[in-house]
Amino acid sequence: MSVTTTMTKPQAVKTNAGRFFEDYRVGMVMDHAVPRTVSGGERALYHALYPARHALYSSDQFAQNCGLPFSPLDDMAAFHVVFGKTVPDVSLNAVANLGYAQGRWLLPVYAGDTLRSRSEVIGVKQNSNGKTGVVYVRTTGLNQRDETVMEYVRWVMVRKRDADAPAPEPVVPDLPKALTVSDLVVPSGLDFSNYDFDQAGEAHRWGDYQVGEQIDHVDGVTIEEAEHMMATRLWQNTAKVHFDTSARPDGSRLIYGGHVISMARALSFNGLANAQMVVGLNAGAHANPCLAGDTVRAWSEVLDKAETAAPGVGALRLRLVATKGGAPFNLRTDDGKYAPEVLLDLDYWVLIPV
Amino acid sequence: MSVTTTMTKPQAVKTNAGRFFEDYRVGMVMDHAVPRTVSGGERALYHALYPARHALYSSDQFAQNCGLPFSPLDDMAAFHVVFGKTVPDVSLNAVANLGYAQGRWLLPVYAGDTLRSRSEVIGVKQNSNGKTGVVYVRTTGLNQRDETVMEYVRWVMVRKRDADAPAPEPVVPDLPKALTVSDLVVPSGLDFSNYDFDQAGEAHRWGDYQVGEQIDHVDGVTIEEAEHMMATRLWQNTAKVHFDTSARPDGSRLIYGGHVISMARALSFNGLANAQMVVGLNAGAHANPCLAGDTVRAWSEVLDKAETAAPGVGALRLRLVATKGGAPFNLRTDDGKYAPEVLLDLDYWVLIPV
Amino acid sequence: MSVTTTMTKPQAVKTNAGRFFEDYRVGMVMDHAVPRTVSGGERALYHALYPARHALYSSDQFAQNCGLPFSPLDDMAAFHVVFGKTVPDVSLNAVANLGYAQGRWLLPVYAGDTLRSRSEVIGVKQNSNGKTGVVYVRTTGLNQRDETVMEYVRWVMVRKRDADAPAPEPVVPDLPKALTVSDLVVPSGLDFSNYDFDQAGEAHRWGDYQVGEQIDHVDGVTIEEAEHMMATRLWQNTAKVHFDTSARPDGSRLIYGGHVISMARALSFNGLANAQMVVGLNAGAHANPCLAGDTVRAWSEVLDKAETAAPGVGALRLRLVATKGGAPFNLRTDDGKYAPEVLLDLDYWVLIPV
Repeated sequence: MSVTTTMTKPQAVKTNAGRFFEDYRVGMVMDHAVPRTVSGGERALYHALYPARHALYSSDQFAQNCGLPFSPLDDMAAFHVVFGKTVPDVSLNAVANLGYAQGRWLLPVYAGDTLRSRSEVIGVKQNSNGKTGVVYVRTTGLNQRDETVMEYVRWVMVRKRDADAPAPEPVVPDLPKALTVSDLVVPSGLDFSNYDFDQAGEAHRWGDYQVGEQIDHVDGVTIEEAEHMMATRLWQNTAKVHFDTSARPDGSRLIYGGHVISMARALSFNGLANAQMVVGLNAGAHANPCLAGDTVRAWSEVLDKAETAAPGVGALRLRLVATKGGAPFNLRTDDGKYAPEVLLDLDYWVLIPV
Repeated sequence: MSVTTTMTKPQAVKTNAGRFFEDYRVGMVMDHAVPRTVSGGERALYHALYPARHALYSSDQFAQNCGLPFSPLDDMAAFHVVFGKTVPDVSLNAVANLGYAQGRWLLPVYAGDTLRSRSEVIGVKQNSNGKTGVVYVRTTGLNQRDETVMEYVRWVMVRKRDADAPAPEPVVPDLPKALTVSDLVVPSGLDFSNYDFDQAGEAHRWGDYQVGEQIDHVDGVTIEEAEHMMATRLWQNTAKVHFDTSARPDGSRLIYGGHVISMARALSFNGLANAQMVVGLNAGAHANPCLAGDTVRAWSEVLDKAETAAPGVGALRLRLVATKGGAPFNLRTDDGKYAPEVLLDLDYWVLIPV
Repeated sequence: MSVTTTMTKPQAVKTNAGRFFEDYRVGMVMDHAVPRTVSGGERALYHALYPARHALYSSDQFAQNCGLPFSPLDDMAAFHVVFGKTVPDVSLNAVANLGYAQGRWLLPVYAGDTLRSRSEVIGVKQNSNGKTGVVYVRTTGLNQRDETVMEYVRWVMVRKRDADAPAPEPVVPDLPKALTVSDLVVPSGLDFSNYDFDQAGEAHRWGDYQVGEQIDHVDGVTIEEAEHMMATRLWQNTAKVHFDTSARPDGSRLIYGGHVISMARALSFNGLANAQMVVGLNAGAHANPCLAGDTVRAWSEVLDKAETAAPGVGALRLRLVATKGGAPFNLRTDDGKYAPEVLLDLDYWVLIPV
């Protein structure tokens, strides 16, 4: 076969440069690439990367005692797998990850399941500077039986390819500040009637938590580059800033926000050991960047409580705050902005024995 | 629901502050929390974290040729899982891990097994300074069929909550310096009659080792923070000093002693490739702290030899010493203390083909 | 039992000092030690250590849609397992890894398979300095059914034990510069007729690549010590220079060349997402050492194209170049040597949908 002339910019032809703001249209559906089969390997790695100890995700016997067939993959790991697939289509040229809403976990994920992701654009709004815009997508995670395992809305600020491209008609979806308990899906069969508090590690049940209560989770973990990169790669998240010291002017690698979510959630075991299953994500903000060397701590606040129809199963709405220093329970400065030590402000629903 | 007044010290209510010396009573039984199902993921991580090459723990075929159904989880990994669960109840406020005795591996652990731990307090003795005391516990690791997979005694120095609390009646268990071969349990079915020395990597059999013989294992591994933290988390060991640079005055993270045990045992392959199954732990001392950046090496000494009733199976009692420098075979200084480069002095029984 | 007198150099007796040049004879066969059963754990770790996203190795469903029973272990992981076993017998005293030829992947490796390695010496040639020689070995990887899963030739420069030992009759095998497509083995059942380009991540098929075309894979990964050591240990590769900071005069740990191969191959997804199965290794050079802190990038060049008899399956011969800086497509300096930023120059065959 003959050798062809090398093209002048061959990489422009074959590699993915990512979408820009003007590439998104409301109603557009993206089937994200690279489905992933998870196994005991992903479960073990999750426990090696985070101090995760919620018993339902650690022991098949504990899970079976709660009415599930096996111990599922951590709910946040399922989120990361689904999220990671969206990065090449949604956030490769994102300036910022602005928010989450209406996140629901609909089915537990087990070893052997294969996950893929699909996103629909549900809003676009150009910023007044004309250089960027906000894109709203509703992402769905599906398993090998085409069942939806989770879904969430997120919105990101995306660069325009061409600042002179006309602004689209703005569409901003009407998103609730939080899910209500009737929006939540309790996994089929879940039953906390015979819940083993000794095996779970704490005696505190639903009735022991009060709205407004704050919990300092005490423990801290100093983050290493190798760990956050292994985690982020495991979820096949390809954003350059997490891996390449030449991608940011200061030579630092920005830690994937989801690494901070999982670290804080795992640390919250100490005080919330029975807050087993994450079923709703109301909102979330990555308040400040996290870098290797930071020592991550966490505190929680009980925002709401609700009962569910499942036997022995109650729900708590929790604020989970991750910090890299400072005193617990400090969220914002006097001007209403996040305190500089706050990394994450997450608002989620969890299932807990009554 | 109404917002309740925030408590002044909410963390005191919900989080685990750990037990203090006066909380332990002889005869007290603690069922430790968070059972764990292990899989091929834990096996693969063990091989990624340590240069482990003992063939029985690497190959299903090799294990089957030795009469076992599958290749088990490394015996030290089983120990770490059982040990890790005891930390929140036994050593969260420990000043020092003083010793081990009467450790026995009773059943191999396979992928799919779920382990939990239980400890009984068998001794307490307040120290003369009145601020600390020594607690002796016998820990049992159980599987999902309530079979005991391993057991060991360890004693730790624990802080008193209140220096003025009265000293308990001292009880110091009578612990043998070493197990005898009749105390050891050879796994059911184990048969080294058809042992494949080529596949195992060395030709040395039981008869080739002599009491008093010393072996320099030659190889060294320089330790990284990310690795020891991943290992320690994988075993759900929560001791703060391993993870949080603010937990110790010098800002260093103290490496879990079990990481040094596994590293040294793996390095001992070079010279002890056929010392396959660890069945007894006679004694052990973490002589000096290990920190990231240390290069761990190991040497062994043959302390005793014995025959067993299983076909082709002999036993060696070995001293395994891990160092962070210096010449091999140097254990103590002239004053009888451990040399400053010695990290670990472990006395254990292992099964080897005759 | 009585304590024997300690031997003066006990380590010389029991530990493996590795073979020297004069220990190799043409026709000699070495059955390498420590067979290894792989599981979902090795698969997950591969995805945590490398940004691997080729869909056939990520999803059972995708693999089944291509006619395979499950998603295999990454072909490079299979290579690393087979290669790692040869190190104690072939390259413990190697000065340099000089080249590869005639590498063929003959059967996919699945979770549950047990791999072992065997090498035959096919050439020896003493160097003119009399201190070293080149050893050529043909290595075969076998599974638990004694089927060959892969094979390759490599040659290494090995130190002589005794510079005065006589030179052997030189035997230099006649190795082809590259395999032809008729040498390649397409896995039984492989069928790309229903290939899902959306799930694979790119639309480019065999017909879209032209001989001579160059692709800059754009992304970069900054390498950490913990990661390359975990990878290298996972493949049970024991070469000291990868782990021990005291093994090289400058205190650096030399990164296993296979870590660079896997990193570059994974990075090549961006532009070669459909280049799914690696079936042939024509040649390879580790042009310069890679150290922690280096940011690895990759570019590819299409060297040849061929059709295969399997439905929908074409083959591309690719050059894969890994660098630690500099502009893409720069391979050699004016004097014909590799440019100082080039880490790897690999020549391989891959299967891709037509």
